[in-house]
Amino acid sequence: MININENYLKLQDSYLFSTIAKKVAEYQKNNPESKVIKLGIGDVTLPIVPAVVDAVKVAIEEMGTEGKLKGYGPEQGYDFLREKIAEMDYKKRGINIDLDEIFVSDGAKTDTGNIGDIFSIANTVAITDPVYPVYLDTNIMAERKIVYLPATSENSFIPELPKEKVDMIYLCFPNNPTGTVLKKEELKAWVDYALENKSVILFDAAYEAFITEDNVPHSIYEIEGAKKVAIEFRSFSKTAGFTGLRCAYTVVPKELKGYTELGEEVSINSLWNRRQCTKFNGVSYVIQKGAEAVYSEEGQEEIKNNIKYYLENARIIREGLQEAGYTIFGGINAPYIWLKVPNGLTSWEFFDKLLSEYNIVGTPGSGFGPSGEGYFRLTAFGSRENTIEAINRIRKSVTS
Amino acid sequence: MININENYLKLQDSYLFSTIAKKVAEYQKNNPESKVIKLGIGDVTLPIVPAVVDAVKVAIEEMGTEGKLKGYGPEQGYDFLREKIAEMDYKKRGINIDLDEIFVSDGAKTDTGNIGDIFSIANTVAITDPVYPVYLDTNIMAERKIVYLPATSENSFIPELPKEKVDMIYLCFPNNPTGTVLKKEELKAWVDYALENKSVILFDAAYEAFITEDNVPHSIYEIEGAKKVAIEFRSFSKTAGFTGLRCAYTVVPKELKGYTELGEEVSINSLWNRRQCTKFNGVSYVIQKGAEAVYSEEGQEEIKNNIKYYLENARIIREGLQEAGYTIFGGINAPYIWLKVPNGLTSWEFFDKLLSEYNIVGTPGSGFGPSGEGYFRLTAFGSRENTIEAINRIRKSVTS
Repeated sequence: MININENYLKLQDSYLFSTIAKKVAEYQKNNPESKVIKLGIGDVTLPIVPAVVDAVKVAIEEMGTEGKLKGYGPEQGYDFLREKIAEMDYKKRGINIDLDEIFVSDGAKTDTGNIGDIFSIANTVAITDPVYPVYLDTNIMAERKIVYLPATSENSFIPELPKEKVDMIYLCFPNNPTGTVLKKEELKAWVDYALENKSVILFDAAYEAFITEDNVPHSIYEIEGAKKVAIEFRSFSKTAGFTGLRCAYTVVPKELKGYTELGEEVSINSLWNRRQCTKFNGVSYVIQKGAEAVYSEEGQEEIKNNIKYYLENARIIREGLQEAGYTIFGGINAPYIWLKVPNGLTSWEFFDKLLSEYNIVGTPGSGFGPSGEGYFRLTAFGSRENTIEAINRIRKSVTS
Repeated sequence: MININENYLKLQDSYLFSTIAKKVAEYQKNNPESKVIKLGIGDVTLPIVPAVVDAVKVAIEEMGTEGKLKGYGPEQGYDFLREKIAEMDYKKRGINIDLDEIFVSDGAKTDTGNIGDIFSIANTVAITDPVYPVYLDTNIMAERKIVYLPATSENSFIPELPKEKVDMIYLCFPNNPTGTVLKKEELKAWVDYALENKSVILFDAAYEAFITEDNVPHSIYEIEGAKKVAIEFRSFSKTAGFTGLRCAYTVVPKELKGYTELGEEVSINSLWNRRQCTKFNGVSYVIQKGAEAVYSEEGQEEIKNNIKYYLENARIIREGLQEAGYTIFGGINAPYIWLKVPNGLTSWEFFDKLLSEYNIVGTPGSGFGPSGEGYFRLTAFGSRENTIEAINRIRKSVTS
């Protein structure tokens, strides 16, 4: 008789963004004349930049040419892309990453979701709260013990180091959903903890491109010793608008060791390589050529303009809401603005109010975990026009 | 302390095709004048057909246009593609598959590799021997008990039903590596076994497009009751040359039930949907548009010509080797030819002989499992010219 993985039955049933979508659809049905502005889901809106469009076109033409097909590629990604990553994302910041430490994939969600495959289910996992739900759900699926690290305005969204020993630690900075960052010395405390406790840090740097301030590390490998304890996840989704094209990469340093129950050292890099070679067949050649073009001179200029555009939206939201009297976090080194819900409302009550009174859609903080209750996330990924209008609606209501 | 998944240490270290690649590289280094012909790895060689090339170009242009970006798509795949799959791959053969039973992914390797996530590790797994290594390795990683079902010339490569009760059964027909098929009544015996024992059949139909004979089911759902017990994996890799573009799909019928330890029924479709929504973010929009174009009138004609081309290669290999006195299986409904190694040689001895005497690369049967010992796989995915020359070399050696 076929038995299921019963851990799946412990997962929360309804998914945050589908609940939001349902509520919005219902509102729009009942109020067809309302112009609803969506600053909820973290998806980009600007078109794919010309350098990438051209590269994908050239690549598919090539594959359609006699004798030029690219069939199965390396599971780890093509060297032409891994070389660019090693050079532009690391070497330029003084970090040496070998090509065989880089694993190109179809998404950071895929990699943060699958990384648990290579670790024992007996490990204890620490996740910050509020958090990107994938870290939580994938560890419920694996039945690992989970320790929550609250991040609230009281600790400036920098969770305290765990009081008990934990083996796996998920950190995401710039943070989704709070938009906050760790400064170098703050991240160093985590690396030191992991070195001391032989833990592994799963560092999600998907929003790295939005960092504007000095002394905020772009990579965890800027911290001494991090290669011994950290896996870093990066993505082209927010950097270059690849949410619909699908390309990301994960760095697994060869210095990073895991342990058998008897305490023998094992290379985590080898395990992840074996996992990817067995359960993955590489990213589409045409998409990898598109990702390569992100690193060209034109590509770099084009994507930097897009990031600037989104950061300007963030500034408009942040300053506009501050002027309207809201307490705001994030939005300086991240596309997310995290606001304290006023007047003691719950996150969902504020969601309903924002939707019905101002026709604006955001994301209730409680959807990211219990410590998100009383907070609310807005994203900078909308159009300039909609962003300005949304903020004007809120400000008008305050001044009127 | 971070503990690893120690099951990984039980996996065989060296991977079949990398061993072959090393041997071939060494031979070519020592014999630079030899023209080595590769009929080993199962990768296509004909270019991507024009209908697909055009569709991908249109799609990336669209994504590069103001206001036309496709961001995150549905994790399950876009309806435009799922509708074509339901219509062309199923409805045309009298099978009704709902759109929410179809899950588009980046590869059948990914899906056959990940499907175990939703099942209990206490299940017993049956795999045929020889076998595609992914089924074996992923179940070693999960520490499931494995039962081998030998497929040899003695049973015409139709494994006997397991004598003990098994919960998960991997079947791949047309088979990789043997190139053999199950007739309708033969597949029915497996479905009946699964119905009786409440097992699930994981049916890999990646080579379906190569079926030429009647009474060979293209889908397991042609068998009565199969929707209650079977998951079907399909791929555009061999059908439309997508090995380097990456698109596949998996059908999980809503009628299919799994069980908790207490015997409660659970929908497998819901579990797989939850898995995909949590650990996957959908296939690239441009690739899905390419896959959609496979179903257009031009697309269908173009890919059918490619399949014909490979099947003609298969015929050339099969008949040529038969005339040269070899005992041959497969190659009629599959791109693989499985030959009995002559003169009591082992598979690897024959590999060395074929490489050094005829400069031809194939795949040793023993690389697919112990019952593959004494057999050898050749593929029909080479060019016509190379295929003819390879067979001429072997025939000459016999007649000279």
